[in-house]
Amino acid sequence: MTLSSAADRPIVPVILSGGSGTRLWPLSRKARPKQMMTIGGGTTMLQRTAARVGDRDLFAAPLVVVGAGQANAVAAQLAELGASDAQLIVEPEGRNTAPAIALAALAAGPDDLLLVMPSDHLIGDADSFAAAVARAAPVAADGWLVTFGVRPSRPETGYGYIRRGEAIAEGVFRAERFVEKPDAATAETYLADGGYDWNGGIFLFRAGSYLDALAEHAPDIAGGVRAALLAGGAAPDAAAFADVRAESIDRAVMEHARRVAVVPVEMDWSDVGSWQALYETATADADGNVVAGEALAIDARGCLLQSEGPLIVAIGVEDLAVIAAGDAVLIVPRAASQRVSEAVAALRERGDPRL
Amino acid sequence: MTLSSAADRPIVPVILSGGSGTRLWPLSRKARPKQMMTIGGGTTMLQRTAARVGDRDLFAAPLVVVGAGQANAVAAQLAELGASDAQLIVEPEGRNTAPAIALAALAAGPDDLLLVMPSDHLIGDADSFAAAVARAAPVAADGWLVTFGVRPSRPETGYGYIRRGEAIAEGVFRAERFVEKPDAATAETYLADGGYDWNGGIFLFRAGSYLDALAEHAPDIAGGVRAALLAGGAAPDAAAFADVRAESIDRAVMEHARRVAVVPVEMDWSDVGSWQALYETATADADGNVVAGEALAIDARGCLLQSEGPLIVAIGVEDLAVIAAGDAVLIVPRAASQRVSEAVAALRERGDPRL
Repeated sequence: MTLSSAADRPIVPVILSGGSGTRLWPLSRKARPKQMMTIGGGTTMLQRTAARVGDRDLFAAPLVVVGAGQANAVAAQLAELGASDAQLIVEPEGRNTAPAIALAALAAGPDDLLLVMPSDHLIGDADSFAAAVARAAPVAADGWLVTFGVRPSRPETGYGYIRRGEAIAEGVFRAERFVEKPDAATAETYLADGGYDWNGGIFLFRAGSYLDALAEHAPDIAGGVRAALLAGGAAPDAAAFADVRAESIDRAVMEHARRVAVVPVEMDWSDVGSWQALYETATADADGNVVAGEALAIDARGCLLQSEGPLIVAIGVEDLAVIAAGDAVLIVPRAASQRVSEAVAALRERGDPRL
Repeated sequence: MTLSSAADRPIVPVILSGGSGTRLWPLSRKARPKQMMTIGGGTTMLQRTAARVGDRDLFAAPLVVVGAGQANAVAAQLAELGASDAQLIVEPEGRNTAPAIALAALAAGPDDLLLVMPSDHLIGDADSFAAAVARAAPVAADGWLVTFGVRPSRPETGYGYIRRGEAIAEGVFRAERFVEKPDAATAETYLADGGYDWNGGIFLFRAGSYLDALAEHAPDIAGGVRAALLAGGAAPDAAAFADVRAESIDRAVMEHARRVAVVPVEMDWSDVGSWQALYETATADADGNVVAGEALAIDARGCLLQSEGPLIVAIGVEDLAVIAAGDAVLIVPRAASQRVSEAVAALRERGDPRL
């Protein structure tokens, strides 16, 4: 299998590691976002993302877009993995994905094929992912902006969807329409329809194709990022970059561009966007409990017990998520774990350092 | 009011602080039993017990029977309270209350009236307690073994009960019968009957009366304790004391002695024998939550949230007890909090240091 760009150059992975997710609070923190965490043991999500594109016969050294506060930690994690050839692009502050990807595209050559990936998603079936990238490569080399569509397994209301259009190659379809997070009834119709995929936030395109589309559909962002780089020299100027409109690639580009393709793929994907999502990616024991770290479950069922140190003792409880970090403990019904955002908001309001 | 012994000497408080209760695990530990804890803020339960008999016009300096491991901490807590005149009697190991009280009785004069109190009970209404002691004093001076009966407020199956017999003085009754912890149906009949009180484990008697009754009904314990003191000199000999039968005063003496009296008293008493009992002694907020330490309750109801440090965040849960110590977190339905014993047993079995 050859994964090569139009100019027969290896694909350049772009790993987006600027996020400061709080949906897995209290384990994820501002100072240690989700991608820096080991989820389910072993290496961190960032390291697993880098390892997924670690074969240097197939992929070039990655560009890693990282928040200023995490640059050292990210560099250390990549070095641990033997991926010291990664090039770090430090964002002075997070302005969402459209500007971050623009920084990477400007660092690459215009004909380089960029494989853009969030650093905090899990992909269980790496072979299917690689095969989908191989299917997408010629189409992307031809100038299309390709997104990877995750086959829905449930009527999820937390993701955007992509409507598949006509086939333009084997396993590659025109993206007919991007739709925002639907309500539950709409999500049910999408699932039943079968023609919709989840927007997983993974993309493949020529650097030049992206920059052209950005210039056309979000010229302020394209111009703002160039200006920040001009003002900054080696790294983007902080004040200029702060002035760039914070916008996602989906809203800034993908929803508007003409030649957008989707490659559906079943690859055991999870964005691990909540404790419930994490529970679903794991293998539960006979009582339906998922345990990470030290925990003692006595007559407890269906619980996620995750500790970074303290021993969790759960007795006679059901379907709870209990997450213990050093200085905070979260207890929430597992199915309502997205409500951690309410706690995060309360802590933010009072300037609590445990955020 | 004068609380004086037959020989017109002040009453000698005997504070039993040898227990290593684990029913409030993970806050109470082997190395820091319940009486060393502040419950509901302020001073520790031991300090409050000592303060209850702190008036030196009414009470002599207390005798405090304490486990070897806690002697220094107990001395420090008493000094903090200004009760440095307390005399510590160090037990080499815990052998239950009958031997512990024998050590105190042998340290006192035979005519001294001993007011024996566990160090880990709460008494909300100290005046009622003092009045009950005053009622009991002449009867005890006359040679009776007096126990204080707590008026039952519910059909509790966790306590022993005392059946009141004929009145022998104003507010003082012959104890007709001691009964062990009843089943639920029996507890209901006791509550309905009205003639039963909880055995609160608080006693008043002449030191000599107790030692005589012990010699008669548990001569092995009486002899064993004397032997340990003879062998040990200043403190009981460890090996000899370890040979003394471990038995409660109730089983060794009170259930058998002839002149046993009960003084019923309503004094807002709790043995704080479970997290549920602790919850009941506290004042809940509008959502029915009782919070001690740092906790954030979001749409949580009827919960006991007690932390020694970590921030507890409880979202959308009901009627849970969540107890966070430094190295352990307990989550259990509040009404089932006595099940902590199952966790304690499991930790003991594996020799877990967090016990």
